[in-house]
Amino acid sequence: MVHNIMTNKHNIILQPSGRRGQVEEGQSIRSAARDLGVEIESICAENGTCGKCMVLIEEGRFEKYNIDSRRENVSPITPAETAYFERRPNLLKSKGWKVGQVRLSCQCKIQGDVLINVPEESRGNKQIIRKSATQREIEIKPSIRKYLVLMEPPNLERPIADWERLAKGLGTSISLVRSGEENLPQWSDFTVDYACMRTMSATLREAKWKVTVSVWQDKEVVQVQAGYHEDSYGAAVDIGSTTVALYLCNLRTGEILAAESEMNPQIVYGEDVMSRIQYTIEHKDGLEKLHRAIIATLNKLLKQAVKTANKKINENGSGSQQDRENGNDSAIEPVNEHVKVEDILEMVLVGNSTMHHLLLNLSPKDLGLAPFVPVIHKSVDVKARELGLQINPSGNIHILPTIASFVGADTSAMIIAEEPHKQDENWLLIDVGTNAELVLGNRNRLLCTSTPTGPALEGAHVEYGMRAAPGAIERIEIDEKTLEPRYKVIGVDGWHSDHTRFKGHVKGICGSAIIDGVAELFRTGIVDSRGKFQTKLESNRIRLGASGWEYIIAWEDETSIGRDIPMTQQDVRQIQLAKAALFVAARTLLKRFGLQSPDKIILAGGFGSYIDKEKAMLIGLIPDCELDHVFAVGNAAGDGARIALLNVEKRNEIGLITRKVERFELPTDPEFQNQFMLATSFPHMSEPFTHIAHLIPNRTIDALAKKFVTK
Amino acid sequence: MVHNIMTNKHNIILQPSGRRGQVEEGQSIRSAARDLGVEIESICAENGTCGKCMVLIEEGRFEKYNIDSRRENVSPITPAETAYFERRPNLLKSKGWKVGQVRLSCQCKIQGDVLINVPEESRGNKQIIRKSATQREIEIKPSIRKYLVLMEPPNLERPIADWERLAKGLGTSISLVRSGEENLPQWSDFTVDYACMRTMSATLREAKWKVTVSVWQDKEVVQVQAGYHEDSYGAAVDIGSTTVALYLCNLRTGEILAAESEMNPQIVYGEDVMSRIQYTIEHKDGLEKLHRAIIATLNKLLKQAVKTANKKINENGSGSQQDRENGNDSAIEPVNEHVKVEDILEMVLVGNSTMHHLLLNLSPKDLGLAPFVPVIHKSVDVKARELGLQINPSGNIHILPTIASFVGADTSAMIIAEEPHKQDENWLLIDVGTNAELVLGNRNRLLCTSTPTGPALEGAHVEYGMRAAPGAIERIEIDEKTLEPRYKVIGVDGWHSDHTRFKGHVKGICGSAIIDGVAELFRTGIVDSRGKFQTKLESNRIRLGASGWEYIIAWEDETSIGRDIPMTQQDVRQIQLAKAALFVAARTLLKRFGLQSPDKIILAGGFGSYIDKEKAMLIGLIPDCELDHVFAVGNAAGDGARIALLNVEKRNEIGLITRKVERFELPTDPEFQNQFMLATSFPHMSEPFTHIAHLIPNRTIDALAKKFVTK
Repeated sequence: MVHNIMTNKHNIILQPSGRRGQVEEGQSIRSAARDLGVEIESICAENGTCGKCMVLIEEGRFEKYNIDSRRENVSPITPAETAYFERRPNLLKSKGWKVGQVRLSCQCKIQGDVLINVPEESRGNKQIIRKSATQREIEIKPSIRKYLVLMEPPNLERPIADWERLAKGLGTSISLVRSGEENLPQWSDFTVDYACMRTMSATLREAKWKVTVSVWQDKEVVQVQAGYHEDSYGAAVDIGSTTVALYLCNLRTGEILAAESEMNPQIVYGEDVMSRIQYTIEHKDGLEKLHRAIIATLNKLLKQAVKTANKKINENGSGSQQDRENGNDSAIEPVNEHVKVEDILEMVLVGNSTMHHLLLNLSPKDLGLAPFVPVIHKSVDVKARELGLQINPSGNIHILPTIASFVGADTSAMIIAEEPHKQDENWLLIDVGTNAELVLGNRNRLLCTSTPTGPALEGAHVEYGMRAAPGAIERIEIDEKTLEPRYKVIGVDGWHSDHTRFKGHVKGICGSAIIDGVAELFRTGIVDSRGKFQTKLESNRIRLGASGWEYIIAWEDETSIGRDIPMTQQDVRQIQLAKAALFVAARTLLKRFGLQSPDKIILAGGFGSYIDKEKAMLIGLIPDCELDHVFAVGNAAGDGARIALLNVEKRNEIGLITRKVERFELPTDPEFQNQFMLATSFPHMSEPFTHIAHLIPNRTIDALAKKFVTK
Repeated sequence: MVHNIMTNKHNIILQPSGRRGQVEEGQSIRSAARDLGVEIESICAENGTCGKCMVLIEEGRFEKYNIDSRRENVSPITPAETAYFERRPNLLKSKGWKVGQVRLSCQCKIQGDVLINVPEESRGNKQIIRKSATQREIEIKPSIRKYLVLMEPPNLERPIADWERLAKGLGTSISLVRSGEENLPQWSDFTVDYACMRTMSATLREAKWKVTVSVWQDKEVVQVQAGYHEDSYGAAVDIGSTTVALYLCNLRTGEILAAESEMNPQIVYGEDVMSRIQYTIEHKDGLEKLHRAIIATLNKLLKQAVKTANKKINENGSGSQQDRENGNDSAIEPVNEHVKVEDILEMVLVGNSTMHHLLLNLSPKDLGLAPFVPVIHKSVDVKARELGLQINPSGNIHILPTIASFVGADTSAMIIAEEPHKQDENWLLIDVGTNAELVLGNRNRLLCTSTPTGPALEGAHVEYGMRAAPGAIERIEIDEKTLEPRYKVIGVDGWHSDHTRFKGHVKGICGSAIIDGVAELFRTGIVDSRGKFQTKLESNRIRLGASGWEYIIAWEDETSIGRDIPMTQQDVRQIQLAKAALFVAARTLLKRFGLQSPDKIILAGGFGSYIDKEKAMLIGLIPDCELDHVFAVGNAAGDGARIALLNVEKRNEIGLITRKVERFELPTDPEFQNQFMLATSFPHMSEPFTHIAHLIPNRTIDALAKKFVTK
């Protein structure tokens, strides 16, 4: 790793993974990315000659956060880079990239904050090994199988129809390809999708009776292509309330050809699911509008993904030539085939129950009204043309099953990705958002529930809360002696106490720092275990503000908003309510399961990836557990969708699991209110938190001891 | 039967069956109809009080053929009729009928030519017994089964989705309704059509969880209706090149609720199938235009049929009240439910292979080019919404299998209707048109072929040929001594020799008379067995015309066209070619089968219903056979479509049969040309026609004898 003698650190954000961190000045982008877990390709030992490690410097992105775009954030173009691009005069044009925007990441060094886009062609990790609580390989068993079929031409003696000769040839091809397998499908049992039937005969003749036939689920012919083709494509989509992420995959290799994301366009009709449900109830065309909005965005993402994938394939033209020269076996396979929209033969989509209903144009009304039931649990298969999704019109759209009104297809996908149902240990999966979904269990039994945690954990309903964006405090520590804080701000280097020169940049507090802040207020005794401010402590940061007691984290002159930024008594109360809701849900699951604590806790979703797990445990957001056994797995729902796309058996598996998962609604538990009050305390009024006990202030322990003695 | 003392006879045509005949003046319409095989309802012993026998006098129809509309063609309205209609002041208005147009057929007597429309509500024969070579009942086993489902409402304890509770309730209902049956479907195996899924939840709540569920093929839910319903509807359609006929049926009772027909709108793009195929090849949007045209006509027919059915149901309101007063058990069933378009849950369609392809928007190009193959043989099931057919969008469209390029789904339907595959005897089925399809066989083996007979048999390519319409000569006899003809003309009473007062009405010769004429020319020796005019005979009717020898059937002053109407040498040649093609096809089938002659000959289609079978045999159009064993069965294709609509097992049956039918193209038979030349003779150069031997002129027999002796 190359280090600059200066000790300056800079922020780097890597797209599309969203990983970010601080790196030392002068480190190469490729090296910095690897440190953050983002692998970038290279086969020339960082000599700047292979071109595999190209990245796009998207520094312009900072402009929208009012932080100046500075050209000098990265080092100048090197002679190696100049030589590389001069030998490929059409490369930039063909990809639509600008000079200076694209760099070889092994050559380009970091000299300031950068936002980097790692294009798909440069990404490493092409083996399909998921990062999860246990690293796992995905077995590729797509719903689509392709067969080369050499048909008998028709003749006057036996003028058999095109379909019957095709089906017979297909039957022969299948028995050749899959000889030895039991229960091979019979040719007379095949069906042909109507849209495929319409174009089939012309293709057969064009192909002179040599075609590649794509069969869905071993029964339905969905595509007939002239000649020999190996690859079909599929798209896995996670429709979040806020963000829609689409992965375009090669169904044969499992390779991700493009990863694209867009804001969920439904957000203009309501920030959260309840307000979108409300919109469909109050507006006659509301459902249709929300449905069309998501379909349009999915079509946009599909188009982008195909473009991205083809850019990569164009570039790989020379690469595969090289492969051939190197005697690489894979070079005998057909490469360089462009991805065509009609070669996308399947999509798998997940989302919470409301997103699920809006995607399918099903009224979500009853998801929002007691007794809160979805239209359907079972997975749905529907032709792409029925939903207006612009892949092959004969392609299938598979939507994973829902489990309950507030435990949707995204939770099903999380289960597919993390596989709690295959564990001997007891795992607790938590997907934290405005609503938290929890799944607890092992190979014998799974329980699930959901709880409304409210938006506090995402920074809303907190006086100076904000989304994770530049200017947001993302980490807080408080010195237990001086009661003085230090903090980190997104887009500003280092901790506050080191960098007074970044004063004037602080805008608010994002979710991870809210957890930090409350935990530190408690650890340092500024608030007691009941969340009450200790007003007698000697610190000018503790004061009676306009809305009650508060602790000032950033003074007025450190901010861009010209006011002191405090955490207030009210903020602490908000967090207490949210964490109590989550904790009681977890505790109720554990109790129903007969457990004191889980063996592993798996935090899914973006939020889980950024919080400090020790501090989350200190405030009692998650149950007591070995800290090493708490994992943040990122977008498990998106991973699950991709797994279901690539392995059709997983769909049956999750169908069986979701039918057996025991689901229940918390308000029906009689102890709920009582449990909830106990859980508002830090970390809890009546639970020992042995794994973070050393962080609990003595007076809390004394109080608890007294309480237990009194009992 | 009431007879008038006058001996006048009048023409009657009964719609929609198309049956016609001559009846004596003064006979009641109901009685005349029964004589012609059209049963009209009545429950008051013809006292004019029950009103069940209403018919519409559509005499106006004659106007368009320039024959005067005369009020006095039927007897005046009787006091009984006046009383009946006065008691029902809204009846005519509700049905859209005019005073005088509608009559009670038991009261109304025939006094002139009439065109009668028997509305569906007045038709008898509601038992589903088909008129066919063997009368047969249709067993009602539709693809749709309906179940009353009482669902569990959702509750907070068990907030199960709507579909899962519905499916479970359905499973319970099925096991109650069909207890004892093996292999009852499991609730978890049911699927729900996507369009049905979209509206289901609202219906369930409106219905307070008591619904009627319609299940297609024991697996897919296609309709959920609030409350209890017994009836679903279906439509059977025969798409002919010229005429499209649609039957709206009650799927539970099998009753035909409406029979509607329209011209095939594709006729403007080409009279015959080859010219329509050509149109799709020559015009880029040709296929789309032809497809849209037939879909639009089917939608028009569906709309008309629903209207007709509801008119009937409105009228039956009082009838069912009566039923209840009579303690009729059936009155406890829900009656008077109007047919709604969304309650039509299935359509079964048949047509020749070109009609089949155009319906499905499949290019018919390869049907018209060697080696003449269809896109698909197998039956097609496709959702109504995919084709834009306006029944329930979840409804299924079933199209019967094709057998070959020129042996289409209409032949499959003919097989379903006539069941040659269930006979011990050897049956020969012939559907005569511009193209003739032939099926020969028994329960062990079926052979089929087709042959282009050309349009001569339908009156085209014959100098004065015309369609069967008023003014057309439809029967011809020639006196063997005087060589003078007598003939009958559609729309004109009696035979020519009886009614010289109808001179000036003759326009041309239709198909049945062309067969008659050629047969009579041969029988009387005017043409010899080779079809050559005998020019030495003494008759001024035999003369050398502009285009060769001819025989004058109607002199100039008998016609409306101001010219003599002859049958020419050329006409005889045309018939020789057509009959030889048909005969050789039949003979080739018989030979391949190892038979000299069939046990029964079944003539399907309109043409077969009107020809004189003895004369058809005399010219050698059909093989030698007992005349009593030759049957005309009318629209067997339409019957077959209706049978497949009402009995789902017939679909599997015909699927298996069509896969086993041995089909072959005649031109591949090496003996074809030789056989063809022999078959152009009357009745045949080398076949004994024992059953019509007495009609064959002596000199032909002498010639044949000489030939055989010479040999």
